[in-house]
Amino acid sequence: METAKTAIEKLLFNYQDALNTSDVNKVLSLYTKDGIFMPQGGPSAVGQEQLKGSYEFVFKTLQLNIKFQIDEVTLINENYAFARTVSRGTQLIHATGVKGEEENRELFVLQKENGAWKIARYIFNKMK
Amino acid sequence: METAKTAIEKLLFNYQDALNTSDVNKVLSLYTKDGIFMPQGGPSAVGQEQLKGSYEFVFKTLQLNIKFQIDEVTLINENYAFARTVSRGTQLIHATGVKGEEENRELFVLQKENGAWKIARYIFNKMK
Repeated sequence: METAKTAIEKLLFNYQDALNTSDVNKVLSLYTKDGIFMPQGGPSAVGQEQLKGSYEFVFKTLQLNIKFQIDEVTLINENYAFARTVSRGTQLIHATGVKGEEENRELFVLQKENGAWKIARYIFNKMK
Repeated sequence: METAKTAIEKLLFNYQDALNTSDVNKVLSLYTKDGIFMPQGGPSAVGQEQLKGSYEFVFKTLQLNIKFQIDEVTLINENYAFARTVSRGTQLIHATGVKGEEENRELFVLQKENGAWKIARYIFNKMK
Protein backbone atom coordinates (compact mmCIF):
# COMPACT_ATOMS: atom_id res chain seq x y z
CA MET A 1 0.00 0.00 0.00
CA GLU A 2 1.22 3.48 -0.81
CA THR A 3 2.05 5.42 2.31
CA ALA A 4 1.07 9.05 2.76
CA LYS A 5 4.74 10.00 2.61
CA THR A 6 5.20 8.24 -0.73
CA ALA A 7 2.03 9.88 -2.08
CA ILE A 8 3.31 13.31 -1.02
CA GLU A 9 6.73 12.70 -2.58
CA LYS A 10 4.92 11.73 -5.79
CA LEU A 11 2.88 14.95 -5.61
CA LEU A 12 6.03 17.04 -5.25
CA PHE A 13 7.70 15.34 -8.22
CA ASN A 14 4.48 15.71 -10.25
CA TYR A 15 4.62 19.42 -9.45
CA GLN A 16 8.28 19.54 -10.56
CA ASP A 17 7.31 17.86 -13.85
CA ALA A 18 4.34 20.23 -14.38
CA LEU A 19 6.73 23.18 -13.97
CA ASN A 20 9.26 21.70 -16.39
CA THR A 21 6.56 21.11 -19.04
CA SER A 22 4.86 24.51 -18.42
CA ASP A 23 1.59 22.60 -17.96
CA VAL A 24 -0.93 24.95 -16.29
CA ASN A 25 -3.73 22.36 -16.15
CA LYS A 26 -1.49 19.82 -14.48
CA VAL A 27 -0.33 22.44 -11.95
CA LEU A 28 -3.95 23.37 -11.15
CA SER A 29 -4.86 19.70 -10.60
CA LEU A 30 -2.13 19.49 -7.95
CA TYR A 31 -3.53 22.38 -5.86
CA THR A 32 -6.54 22.34 -3.53
CA LYS A 33 -9.58 24.39 -4.58
CA ASP A 34 -8.51 27.24 -2.30
CA GLY A 35 -4.76 26.67 -2.73
CA ILE A 36 -2.40 29.64 -2.39
CA PHE A 37 0.77 30.26 -4.42
CA MET A 38 3.21 32.86 -3.01
CA PRO A 39 5.91 33.41 -5.65
CA GLN A 40 9.06 35.42 -4.87
CA GLY A 41 8.59 38.86 -6.44
CA GLY A 42 4.89 38.43 -7.25
CA PRO A 43 1.47 38.79 -5.62
CA SER A 44 -0.19 35.82 -3.91
CA ALA A 45 -2.56 33.78 -6.08
CA VAL A 46 -5.55 32.54 -4.04
CA GLY A 47 -7.80 29.80 -5.42
CA GLN A 48 -7.93 28.02 -8.76
CA GLU A 49 -8.86 31.07 -10.90
CA GLN A 50 -6.00 33.24 -9.62
CA LEU A 51 -3.62 30.26 -9.72
CA LYS A 52 -4.46 29.81 -13.41
CA GLY A 53 -3.60 33.44 -14.18
CA SER A 54 -0.45 33.35 -12.13
CA TYR A 55 1.00 30.18 -13.67
CA GLU A 56 -0.02 31.28 -17.19
CA PHE A 57 2.04 34.41 -16.57
CA VAL A 58 5.00 32.41 -15.21
CA PHE A 59 5.02 30.00 -18.15
CA LYS A 60 4.70 32.80 -20.73
CA THR A 61 7.69 34.46 -19.10
CA LEU A 62 10.08 31.55 -18.68
CA GLN A 63 10.85 27.88 -19.24
CA LEU A 64 12.01 25.96 -16.18
CA ASN A 65 14.23 22.91 -16.13
CA ILE A 66 14.64 22.03 -12.46
CA LYS A 67 14.91 19.10 -10.08
CA PHE A 68 13.37 19.00 -6.61
CA GLN A 69 15.38 17.69 -3.67
CA ILE A 70 13.04 16.76 -0.82
CA ASP A 71 14.54 17.77 2.53
CA GLU A 72 11.54 17.03 4.76
CA VAL A 73 8.05 15.56 4.67
CA THR A 74 6.26 15.77 8.03
CA LEU A 75 2.83 14.20 8.37
CA ILE A 76 0.66 16.09 10.85
CA ASN A 77 -2.47 13.93 10.57
CA GLU A 78 -4.34 12.01 7.89
CA ASN A 79 -5.31 15.25 6.12
CA TYR A 80 -2.36 17.61 6.61
CA ALA A 81 1.39 17.57 6.11
CA PHE A 82 4.17 19.98 5.32
CA ALA A 83 7.30 19.63 3.25
CA ARG A 84 10.56 21.44 2.56
CA THR A 85 12.39 21.15 -0.74
CA VAL A 86 15.22 22.74 -2.68
CA SER A 87 14.89 23.12 -6.45
CA ARG A 88 17.89 23.54 -8.73
CA GLY A 89 18.30 23.86 -12.47
CA THR A 90 17.90 26.51 -15.12
CA GLN A 91 15.35 29.00 -16.36
CA LEU A 92 15.18 30.32 -19.89
CA ILE A 93 13.66 33.81 -20.13
CA HIS A 94 11.58 33.80 -23.32
CA ALA A 95 11.82 37.58 -23.95
CA THR A 96 15.61 37.63 -23.95
CA GLY A 97 16.58 34.04 -24.74
CA VAL A 98 18.90 34.16 -21.76
CA LYS A 99 19.27 30.95 -19.75
CA GLY A 100 20.34 31.29 -16.10
CA GLU A 101 20.94 29.09 -13.07
CA GLU A 102 18.01 28.77 -10.68
CA GLU A 103 18.14 27.69 -7.04
CA ASN A 104 15.21 28.07 -4.68
CA ARG A 105 14.03 26.71 -1.35
CA GLU A 106 10.36 25.84 -0.89
CA LEU A 107 7.91 25.33 1.97
CA PHE A 108 4.67 23.48 1.20
CA VAL A 109 1.56 22.93 3.32
CA LEU A 110 -0.18 19.86 1.89
CA GLN A 111 -3.79 18.82 2.35
CA LYS A 112 -5.75 15.73 1.40
CA GLU A 113 -8.77 16.70 -0.69
CA ASN A 114 -11.17 14.11 -2.12
CA GLY A 115 -8.73 11.35 -1.22
CA ALA A 116 -5.68 12.87 -2.90
CA TRP A 117 -2.78 14.90 -1.47
CA LYS A 118 -2.69 18.44 -2.90
CA ILE A 119 -0.75 21.67 -2.44
CA ALA A 120 -2.64 23.97 -0.04
CA ARG A 121 0.02 26.65 0.53
CA TYR A 122 3.32 27.10 -1.30
CA ILE A 123 6.04 29.73 -0.94
CA PHE A 124 9.66 29.85 -2.08
CA ASN A 125 12.69 32.08 -1.78
CA LYS A 126 16.43 32.09 -2.49
CA MET A 127 19.12 30.79 -0.15
CA LYS A 128 21.75 33.26 -1.41
CA MET B 1 -10.20 31.04 28.16
CA GLU B 2 -7.63 31.97 25.57
CA THR B 3 -8.31 30.20 22.31
CA ALA B 4 -5.56 28.60 20.27
CA LYS B 5 -6.10 31.24 17.58
CA THR B 6 -5.62 34.06 20.09
CA ALA B 7 -2.50 32.37 21.47
CA ILE B 8 -1.06 32.07 17.96
CA GLU B 9 -1.82 35.70 17.15
CA LYS B 10 -0.04 36.65 20.37
CA LEU B 11 2.96 34.51 19.33
CA LEU B 12 3.14 36.26 15.95
CA PHE B 13 3.02 39.71 17.55
CA ASN B 14 5.61 38.63 20.13
CA TYR B 15 7.82 37.62 17.22
CA GLN B 16 7.22 41.02 15.57
CA ASP B 17 8.24 42.74 18.82
CA ALA B 18 11.34 40.55 19.21
CA LEU B 19 12.42 41.54 15.69
CA ASN B 20 11.82 45.24 16.38
CA THR B 21 13.88 45.12 19.58
CA SER B 22 16.64 42.91 18.03
CA ASP B 23 16.16 40.51 20.94
CA VAL B 24 17.83 37.18 20.04
CA ASN B 25 16.86 35.46 23.30
CA LYS B 26 13.21 36.41 22.88
CA VAL B 27 13.26 35.17 19.27
CA LEU B 28 14.79 31.84 20.37
CA SER B 29 12.11 31.39 23.05
CA LEU B 30 9.44 31.67 20.33
CA TYR B 31 10.87 28.79 18.24
CA THR B 32 10.56 25.07 18.88
CA LYS B 33 13.77 23.20 19.80
CA ASP B 34 14.14 22.01 16.19
CA GLY B 35 12.63 25.15 14.61
CA ILE B 36 13.78 26.17 11.12
CA PHE B 37 14.24 29.75 9.86
CA MET B 38 14.46 30.19 6.06
CA PRO B 39 15.40 33.82 5.40
CA GLN B 40 15.30 35.30 1.89
CA GLY B 41 18.89 35.44 0.64
CA GLY B 42 20.38 33.34 3.44
CA PRO B 43 20.94 29.69 4.39
CA SER B 44 18.37 27.82 6.50
CA ALA B 45 18.98 27.83 10.26
CA VAL B 46 17.99 24.50 11.81
CA GLY B 47 17.57 24.20 15.58
CA GLN B 48 18.25 26.59 18.43
CA GLU B 49 22.05 26.82 17.99
CA GLN B 50 21.87 27.74 14.29
CA LEU B 51 18.89 30.02 14.94
CA LYS B 52 21.00 31.91 17.48
CA GLY B 53 23.78 32.49 14.95
CA SER B 54 21.39 33.46 12.20
CA TYR B 55 19.44 36.03 14.21
CA GLU B 56 22.65 37.44 15.76
CA PHE B 57 23.83 38.05 12.20
CA VAL B 58 20.51 39.63 11.17
CA PHE B 59 20.43 41.97 14.17
CA LYS B 60 24.09 42.99 13.73
CA THR B 61 23.30 43.85 10.11
CA LEU B 62 20.07 45.79 10.46
CA GLN B 63 17.42 47.32 12.72
CA LEU B 64 13.82 46.43 11.86
CA ASN B 65 10.77 48.52 12.57
CA ILE B 66 7.85 46.54 11.17
CA LYS B 67 4.22 45.62 11.78
CA PHE B 68 2.72 42.22 11.08
CA GLN B 69 -0.65 41.96 9.38
CA ILE B 70 -2.15 38.50 9.99
CA ASP B 71 -3.88 37.22 6.85
CA GLU B 72 -4.62 33.68 8.00
CA VAL B 73 -4.39 31.41 11.02
CA THR B 74 -5.53 27.84 10.30
CA LEU B 75 -5.64 25.35 13.15
CA ILE B 76 -4.90 21.81 11.98
CA ASN B 77 -5.19 20.05 15.34
CA GLU B 78 -4.37 20.76 18.96
CA ASN B 79 -0.64 20.70 18.23
CA TYR B 80 -0.26 22.16 14.74
CA ALA B 81 -1.36 25.25 12.84
CA PHE B 82 -0.12 27.42 10.02
CA ALA B 83 -0.33 31.15 9.44
CA ARG B 84 0.24 33.69 6.69
CA THR B 85 1.26 37.27 7.41
CA VAL B 86 2.52 40.38 5.66
CA SER B 87 5.09 42.58 7.41
CA ARG B 88 5.63 46.20 6.49
CA GLY B 89 7.88 48.94 7.82
CA THR B 90 11.50 49.97 7.59
CA GLN B 91 14.94 48.54 8.01
CA LEU B 92 18.02 50.53 8.91
CA ILE B 93 21.27 49.02 7.59
CA HIS B 94 23.85 49.60 10.32
CA ALA B 95 26.89 49.57 7.99
CA THR B 96 25.56 52.35 5.76
CA GLY B 97 23.06 54.16 7.97
CA VAL B 98 20.56 53.87 5.11
CA LYS B 99 16.91 53.32 6.06
CA GLY B 100 14.67 51.65 3.49
CA GLU B 101 11.11 50.43 3.16
CA GLU B 102 10.55 46.76 3.91
CA GLU B 103 7.61 44.62 2.80
CA ASN B 104 7.59 40.85 3.11
CA ARG B 105 5.11 37.99 3.09
CA GLU B 106 5.51 35.13 5.57
CA LEU B 107 4.38 31.54 5.93
CA PHE B 108 4.64 29.96 9.41
CA VAL B 109 4.15 26.37 10.54
CA LEU B 110 3.33 26.54 14.25
CA GLN B 111 3.61 23.75 16.80
CA LYS B 112 2.59 23.43 20.44
CA GLU B 113 5.60 22.45 22.54
CA ASN B 114 5.40 22.04 26.33
CA GLY B 115 1.98 23.68 26.32
CA ALA B 116 2.95 26.80 24.35
CA TRP B 117 2.58 27.63 20.65
CA LYS B 118 5.96 28.07 18.94
CA ILE B 119 7.37 28.68 15.47
CA ALA B 120 8.35 25.35 13.89
CA ARG B 121 9.03 26.50 10.30
CA TYR B 122 9.23 30.05 8.98
CA ILE B 123 9.95 31.39 5.49
CA PHE B 124 9.40 34.76 3.87
CA ASN B 125 9.77 36.44 0.51
CA LYS B 126 8.83 39.64 -1.31
CA MET B 127 5.56 40.28 -3.13
CA LYS B 128 7.15 42.62 -5.67
